[in-house]
Amino acid sequence: MILVLRADLAPDAPEVARVVALAESFPDITTQLHTIRGATRSVTEIHLHGATGVIPTAPFEEFEVVEKVVRITERFRAIGRHGGQVDAPGFEYNGIHLSQDTLHLFPGVCAVDTRENLEETFALLARHGIATSRAGVYKPRTSPYDFQGLGAACLPFVFELAGKYGIRIVAMEVTRESHIDEIQRALRESGYATGVMLQIGTRNAQNFELLKAVGQQTELPVLFKRGMGITLEESLNACEYVASGGNHRIVFCLRGVKTHLGDPHRNLVDFAHVPVVKRLTRLPVCIDPSHSVGRRTAGPDGLLDIFHVTAQAVVAGANLVLFDLHPRPEEARCDGPQALLPDELPALLEDVAIVRRAYEERVRVRRAGSEAA
Amino acid sequence: MILVLRADLAPDAPEVARVVALAESFPDITTQLHTIRGATRSVTEIHLHGATGVIPTAPFEEFEVVEKVVRITERFRAIGRHGGQVDAPGFEYNGIHLSQDTLHLFPGVCAVDTRENLEETFALLARHGIATSRAGVYKPRTSPYDFQGLGAACLPFVFELAGKYGIRIVAMEVTRESHIDEIQRALRESGYATGVMLQIGTRNAQNFELLKAVGQQTELPVLFKRGMGITLEESLNACEYVASGGNHRIVFCLRGVKTHLGDPHRNLVDFAHVPVVKRLTRLPVCIDPSHSVGRRTAGPDGLLDIFHVTAQAVVAGANLVLFDLHPRPEEARCDGPQALLPDELPALLEDVAIVRRAYEERVRVRRAGSEAA
Amino acid sequence: MILVLRADLAPDAPEVARVVALAESFPDITTQLHTIRGATRSVTEIHLHGATGVIPTAPFEEFEVVEKVVRITERFRAIGRHGGQVDAPGFEYNGIHLSQDTLHLFPGVCAVDTRENLEETFALLARHGIATSRAGVYKPRTSPYDFQGLGAACLPFVFELAGKYGIRIVAMEVTRESHIDEIQRALRESGYATGVMLQIGTRNAQNFELLKAVGQQTELPVLFKRGMGITLEESLNACEYVASGGNHRIVFCLRGVKTHLGDPHRNLVDFAHVPVVKRLTRLPVCIDPSHSVGRRTAGPDGLLDIFHVTAQAVVAGANLVLFDLHPRPEEARCDGPQALLPDELPALLEDVAIVRRAYEERVRVRRAGSEAA
Amino acid sequence: MILVLRADLAPDAPEVARVVALAESFPDITTQLHTIRGATRSVTEIHLHGATGVIPTAPFEEFEVVEKVVRITERFRAIGRHGGQVDAPGFEYNGIHLSQDTLHLFPGVCAVDTRENLEETFALLARHGIATSRAGVYKPRTSPYDFQGLGAACLPFVFELAGKYGIRIVAMEVTRESHIDEIQRALRESGYATGVMLQIGTRNAQNFELLKAVGQQTELPVLFKRGMGITLEESLNACEYVASGGNHRIVFCLRGVKTHLGDPHRNLVDFAHVPVVKRLTRLPVCIDPSHSVGRRTAGPDGLLDIFHVTAQAVVAGANLVLFDLHPRPEEARCDGPQALLPDELPALLEDVAIVRRAYEERVRVRRAGSEAA
Repeated sequence: MILVLRADLAPDAPEVARVVALAESFPDITTQLHTIRGATRSVTEIHLHGATGVIPTAPFEEFEVVEKVVRITERFRAIGRHGGQVDAPGFEYNGIHLSQDTLHLFPGVCAVDTRENLEETFALLARHGIATSRAGVYKPRTSPYDFQGLGAACLPFVFELAGKYGIRIVAMEVTRESHIDEIQRALRESGYATGVMLQIGTRNAQNFELLKAVGQQTELPVLFKRGMGITLEESLNACEYVASGGNHRIVFCLRGVKTHLGDPHRNLVDFAHVPVVKRLTRLPVCIDPSHSVGRRTAGPDGLLDIFHVTAQAVVAGANLVLFDLHPRPEEARCDGPQALLPDELPALLEDVAIVRRAYEERVRVRRAGSEAA
Repeated sequence: MILVLRADLAPDAPEVARVVALAESFPDITTQLHTIRGATRSVTEIHLHGATGVIPTAPFEEFEVVEKVVRITERFRAIGRHGGQVDAPGFEYNGIHLSQDTLHLFPGVCAVDTRENLEETFALLARHGIATSRAGVYKPRTSPYDFQGLGAACLPFVFELAGKYGIRIVAMEVTRESHIDEIQRALRESGYATGVMLQIGTRNAQNFELLKAVGQQTELPVLFKRGMGITLEESLNACEYVASGGNHRIVFCLRGVKTHLGDPHRNLVDFAHVPVVKRLTRLPVCIDPSHSVGRRTAGPDGLLDIFHVTAQAVVAGANLVLFDLHPRPEEARCDGPQALLPDELPALLEDVAIVRRAYEERVRVRRAGSEAA
Repeated sequence: MILVLRADLAPDAPEVARVVALAESFPDITTQLHTIRGATRSVTEIHLHGATGVIPTAPFEEFEVVEKVVRITERFRAIGRHGGQVDAPGFEYNGIHLSQDTLHLFPGVCAVDTRENLEETFALLARHGIATSRAGVYKPRTSPYDFQGLGAACLPFVFELAGKYGIRIVAMEVTRESHIDEIQRALRESGYATGVMLQIGTRNAQNFELLKAVGQQTELPVLFKRGMGITLEESLNACEYVASGGNHRIVFCLRGVKTHLGDPHRNLVDFAHVPVVKRLTRLPVCIDPSHSVGRRTAGPDGLLDIFHVTAQAVVAGANLVLFDLHPRPEEARCDGPQALLPDELPALLEDVAIVRRAYEERVRVRRAGSEAA
Repeated sequence: MILVLRADLAPDAPEVARVVALAESFPDITTQLHTIRGATRSVTEIHLHGATGVIPTAPFEEFEVVEKVVRITERFRAIGRHGGQVDAPGFEYNGIHLSQDTLHLFPGVCAVDTRENLEETFALLARHGIATSRAGVYKPRTSPYDFQGLGAACLPFVFELAGKYGIRIVAMEVTRESHIDEIQRALRESGYATGVMLQIGTRNAQNFELLKAVGQQTELPVLFKRGMGITLEESLNACEYVASGGNHRIVFCLRGVKTHLGDPHRNLVDFAHVPVVKRLTRLPVCIDPSHSVGRRTAGPDGLLDIFHVTAQAVVAGANLVLFDLHPRPEEARCDGPQALLPDELPALLEDVAIVRRAYEERVRVRRAGSEAA
């Protein structure tokens, strides 16, 4: 059972305590307070755990601070929309608002290699007014003999450069708990020159201990990548590990799935799930076209497949696009062949803008139609 | 080796015969004449089979009627683009031009049930100016105890009604060779009231005998649906069975693939392959959003998943959209739960129009960008 | 509803007619008589179709000729075991008894190429006392430009040679209805020198028209190969098309499934389904180790993977083993690299014999244990 | 490049140092000493890393202590057999010898629930002379709201009871690095009453940080479970993370793969890969029939599917069998429905013994045949 409190109520308001006290007066019921901070408003909820089936809703509805009482299904308890009964306000982090209604591009290097390449990348983004990027520091690789990323040693210059070029969020994969501490420490030492969104890669989609770890801190938001061989439901359940720990600032990322049916693409693109994730959960939805497609082939219309699948996600309402870009792909130590070139960024931005406008028009026309009906 | 002849040359022109004679003068070489009739022009090609690797190109290039000589890879010999060396003019059938540049919707009933329901459907299309539809008459069903379609008995009224409402092409699945004859006869008896595009369903994607049969007649074009559990390459090879028989009026249809990773959709939508098929082959690309999604769920933006995946295909350049629509889905004898309602057609048309404009703008901007560069 | 009649009752006995008459006296009920001829006994059943849920069982149980009345689930109506309620007597064809209790090897050429190679193959089998073989005459190939089999032209010498070397059954794929007639004619013209089991290949597993065709003749038994990308349930439903046509002499063949998870084997071996198919249906279960494995690699114990997967199926109770063997694999026009060599046949026979003994001991010990308990 | 040293040479022998010194005298070459302790003998190898392609083999072959010089492929550098060039001696741990030639059963509880149930389980094993078991303490679960295992708190009684009943190895999943320390501490505190094999579950198959952690300690051996949606090669590469850390006591475990093609089993059983893993690597191969099958259905021969798939693995040479057994499955807090009952253990032991004898006979006959040839 979820008690949605009136908007913008402080979680430490005395009425909240009284509602909690009532809830805990029922046998074996425990409560958890969830605050979801959106851009323009916050939502505070009291989640009741235990045998809530026998608890009446009326006594809670009588509290003025309680906006509504939602009997939830067990599925996706914390991240779920519960059939649309709860809201998806999104969240704000370091001045950037991410929600199911926004759109942000996160271009950047798959793996940080040299300070020069990174600076060139961030400078390029700055020139195009982009304040969100990706930069791989800890790289999980299929073989232990492949390049594993520069690791913590490069964090100082990554953050310094991000700050210098006005990057507000860097999406960065972590593969062990200590990486979170390393990042938090380096961020602090940089004077919070930028912000970091902790990325959980597809190989760790069911590394529940790591999910708990990123869920139990609330300083940094989390970008969770769908597991490549598990069902969407299993991935959403895994995501629930993050939210149930207390961190609700989560983005769900589609990145293609592994099967023999995706060739000649690297993975079978699964962006038809964009509206599905938006319906089932409150999470903003990200896509990773670079790892989905894995190559730089183009259609006869001259548009790269990477552009096409990005357009497919954006036209269906995707909220973030994470993609590989490298000033010198031939120097990239990881996935160079799928990276966009600096020259291609303006074209992608223009292309995405066209498609985003189409998405917005689709929704506007649809709503007008519904109201007319 | 393909000898592309100058545009609009009659296949029976005497120069053509001379080129053929030269080709066949090489040891063990046979030739096949392929004529691809597009809307505004026709392309005639002479395909050389045998050990063409040792044949020089120069003697052919000297003929004035030969526009170019293309050394082809074995892959997708007849349907392939051979790295963009050959053109994709599309084809015209019964007044409708289908190509990699056009867009047509084919709404219709999954399975014909009653004359009344079909008439209502065609009348609805007519009101919206749609001249292309689908209507299932022979239905391959997973279980022998399920409804198998009305069969040949309903063809007369299907064609009569199609004619009455100005439907120029009805896409119709065939599952055995004799169905082709039945359709051709009924069409003739209807005074060619309409046209039929023979559909090869996903279950028959590697029924090579049926593919040969639809490929050896050239009266009716063919819509080939990708096999649900085989690679794209295998499906394209199967399609080659149609073309190698002599029928080049082929449309390739994506309809989702079968895996455990598509849930909650019926299949995993594979429309990221739209630009891939357009790059690898000369075929117009169709999508079937109804069978891909298989249900009528909607995103929080109010748009049905079926609308979203259609938009995803159209924004990447899809050329045909085949979808289920039924005036009374509760009466449908097959796949009722995924059918759109008549009320929803205007919304879909408007939605598709928005997205098609976005696609066209994408291509225009891209071309302008290339020319500027 | 199935009425199982007392063993060895003639289907045309007058009591049977009386039972049928009673059954058809219920509204909208139709009946179908199924006779399954095993080696030592026959089973005759009356299948009731229609709304049998409301029909009482008592009136039928009163007939002396009715052994039992089985209320069936709709699943696998004709081939099913219905939770073990009906028997699996198997069938006899041309002197060979195939059932869930027997074991037969069907070594042979994937595709017939020359008379000499085929004669050498059959002679080899004869020397080892093997009277069951395979020989591909009509070959469905992924590409239309690959060798498609010698076709009907070779049937006379195939049957002549089979007869000469005492081969009683040749498993032979058919890919169109007319192949059945061609085979039946050629068999007749050979004076029934041998017998043929019509094989439905994996690509035609849902070619329902072909399934109906082999199901509507009862002269020749059918070997049905599981579809490579569909669920086991879908394949069993497809098999039901054969049985519902009236032909109950069916063998179900596992041949590996298509996914990215089977490498380095050609397919992912699915022989764990041997006991599943035996539990769900009455059909003898065949396996095809050659197409599953697709290569001639061996374990460090010196045993070929083909031997290992055969052993895996046999130790779990498989009834037929279809495998490729060629006297000169380098001359094979199809799948040469996976064929066993004549030299390897004795080793395989010995290996299979060891494992079959182990299976029989497993069952014996298990039954003794059950009786003791 | 691998320098295999003469058997039973002490790694600290002065000649070894001289060989190492020579190796490191080549530019940019580093070395790593690997000692693989089998039951009857040990193998010591010097692995050369770097650009070994240009290094001659002759100078090394002159050392008397060097038995052979193996130029290796990069694939599976540490765990590989390199085309059979290196040996698979297996390893000994706590008095138990595990290798590609041995067979051990590891029955036990999926998740430890009560002391009583565990004691009953171990006592049962003791009565049957079984000294190897499994016991889940840290349980990774799809949903955060499911039982997550008793954790470190139960380790003291698990080890005490294991010791009491003579269990020498308990296979136990770990999901984070700290679990390794907890287990090592508890083992020490128990006076090493038993031994533990650290299990990496399928969900952590590409949790490379955890793999490195279990690879960098050499006290406890590791049981690595194949990833459920990745290729065999990817899983073997992941396993290489363990070995490259220095721990060579690794068992590779097959447990079925996730796809829609395995139904009605929980996973698609992949035990045809038993001989493949034995050919590609030096690792003993384990199977987990309980999680593969996931249910207690039986064939018409009365043998449970779990028995059948176990037989399939054993007949092809599997070395360990990990399976769920619970004295009161209805009390099990995880996967009760797939657990064997105490009553069924003797039948399984007898069944496995029959099949193991068949495997040994297969190998003996095969070797006799090879020698005769």
